[in-house]
Amino acid sequence: MSSSANHPQPAAQQLAERVRDAMLADDHATRALGIEIVEVGPARALARMPVRRDMLNGFGICHGGLITTLADTAFAYACNSANHVTVAAGVSVDFVAPAHEGDVLAALCEQRTQQARTGVYDVLVSNQHGHVVALMRGRSHRLKSRQVVPDGQGADQP
Amino acid sequence: MSSSANHPQPAAQQLAERVRDAMLADDHATRALGIEIVEVGPARALARMPVRRDMLNGFGICHGGLITTLADTAFAYACNSANHVTVAAGVSVDFVAPAHEGDVLAALCEQRTQQARTGVYDVLVSNQHGHVVALMRGRSHRLKSRQVVPDGQGADQP
Amino acid sequence: MSSSANHPQPAAQQLAERVRDAMLADDHATRALGIEIVEVGPARALARMPVRRDMLNGFGICHGGLITTLADTAFAYACNSANHVTVAAGVSVDFVAPAHEGDVLAALCEQRTQQARTGVYDVLVSNQHGHVVALMRGRSHRLKSRQVVPDGQGADQP
Amino acid sequence: MSSSANHPQPAAQQLAERVRDAMLADDHATRALGIEIVEVGPARALARMPVRRDMLNGFGICHGGLITTLADTAFAYACNSANHVTVAAGVSVDFVAPAHEGDVLAALCEQRTQQARTGVYDVLVSNQHGHVVALMRGRSHRLKSRQVVPDGQGADQP
Repeated sequence: MSSSANHPQPAAQQLAERVRDAMLADDHATRALGIEIVEVGPARALARMPVRRDMLNGFGICHGGLITTLADTAFAYACNSANHVTVAAGVSVDFVAPAHEGDVLAALCEQRTQQARTGVYDVLVSNQHGHVVALMRGRSHRLKSRQVVPDGQGADQP
Repeated sequence: MSSSANHPQPAAQQLAERVRDAMLADDHATRALGIEIVEVGPARALARMPVRRDMLNGFGICHGGLITTLADTAFAYACNSANHVTVAAGVSVDFVAPAHEGDVLAALCEQRTQQARTGVYDVLVSNQHGHVVALMRGRSHRLKSRQVVPDGQGADQP
Repeated sequence: MSSSANHPQPAAQQLAERVRDAMLADDHATRALGIEIVEVGPARALARMPVRRDMLNGFGICHGGLITTLADTAFAYACNSANHVTVAAGVSVDFVAPAHEGDVLAALCEQRTQQARTGVYDVLVSNQHGHVVALMRGRSHRLKSRQVVPDGQGADQP
Repeated sequence: MSSSANHPQPAAQQLAERVRDAMLADDHATRALGIEIVEVGPARALARMPVRRDMLNGFGICHGGLITTLADTAFAYACNSANHVTVAAGVSVDFVAPAHEGDVLAALCEQRTQQARTGVYDVLVSNQHGHVVALMRGRSHRLKSRQVVPDGQGADQP
């Protein structure tokens, strides 16, 4: 997942990081849940969330909806990384193992395909032992002609 | 959704309510998110969540993961209502309209089918205007021979 | 599912039937699989398929893909019934019971929601005993400004 | 996808091939649709299907259900390759591009995770130009204590 490993074009990498910064500025939900956007790149993102007590459900394990929220967050940063405003049209999640208080979950999102304004992204959620906790597949939909940040074609120049 | 409309058997209704009480006692996540379990019954549940500022994502709308968390909560209370400990094997969600700060979302969950230990449940999430915000379908998996609450076959008797 | 029970507007019902006739004319797959479009109406359709020997998989039960094909067929006739050319963006299927040679499967499709050009439809597949075999949820996408049949605004008049 | 590239253990590879042979012997559906099982290995399979005229729907493109049938076939051979009788619990499909008469579709299935008796497998369906046509994710369920072929622990010895 490191930039050096994948050699994205510097411009695409920088754009993904600018988009992340703009999104994070207003992302109250991610902040409230203690989700960290560890890394972004073209069409990918890595997010991390420690499982807190206030994330446990009535059976004493992490609420599946909050595992989904972590995965959906990685998805959002990945599918907006090219600076087209993009929303989730839908997600499907398979829960394969429970997560417990104190676990640190990592969600790695990668693009599978992008056709016109529709994309398919996969997210793998694993715990601090590298065990798979959940798999999510998301379908993204780009809104027409809207950018997350000014495209900087000259805009950043003095 | 009212008990009178559906005439569940009183014993099944009481059991669903006892299960709800037991689950709620430890349900930190639901409490932290301000989710209210409005009503439960045999194989169904209604949950409600006001959209708070700390639920908004980087685009100023309610995080899809938290809409999913609300739906998944209704699902959990519905699929455990018969007192077999039941977990979500997976969910799929279609997001059809955004939710905004101050909206009050309601998630109504109903069972579609139950075969052996596997069930399929549908959740409809709508806002205070009755507009559909999301649809979730969940697959449930009953753990073997585990109950949420003592079955009360005499247990409640002195 | 009968027209009388649901009282669709006659014009909407007639349009659904004209769309069905136009689609069926070229629908080689449906014909080859012996699928019958039993009934159509506004945003709904009922299709039926006897399970033949050449539909069995290596375990001697009906191939899940062909159960999906039946469900997807009902979906196609339902989501095109308003005469906007509409394709499936995706489907998800839960297989809940096997189907056997000689079974007659019925797939009933109904619309859950329609927003702009995106719809969500549910299909219930059951056998001749009324037992549920599978549930499918489909997401539909309307192509822009294309009709299945001429809209007949006067076109049918002499 | 070649054996040499993945170096599966010879015993696992041979078992996958014996399972394939046993399944194919009775697989009427696969044969009727002209599906070829091109390659199998531990937890993976590649299947191919030329799109025939009798696979076209009312819009003149390959029926989505039949694309799903191809993908589901690859899934079946992959998830049974370890010789535990395994069925599909559910599938979800994203259709990303149409397929036309004469196209030759390839479905490559790989395992994402296997926990106890539940697995998650991904299938990528592409055409002869290497363009993605559909993505399927399948959830598999192993039946208890049933094998596809005798395990050959001495059984094949004279």
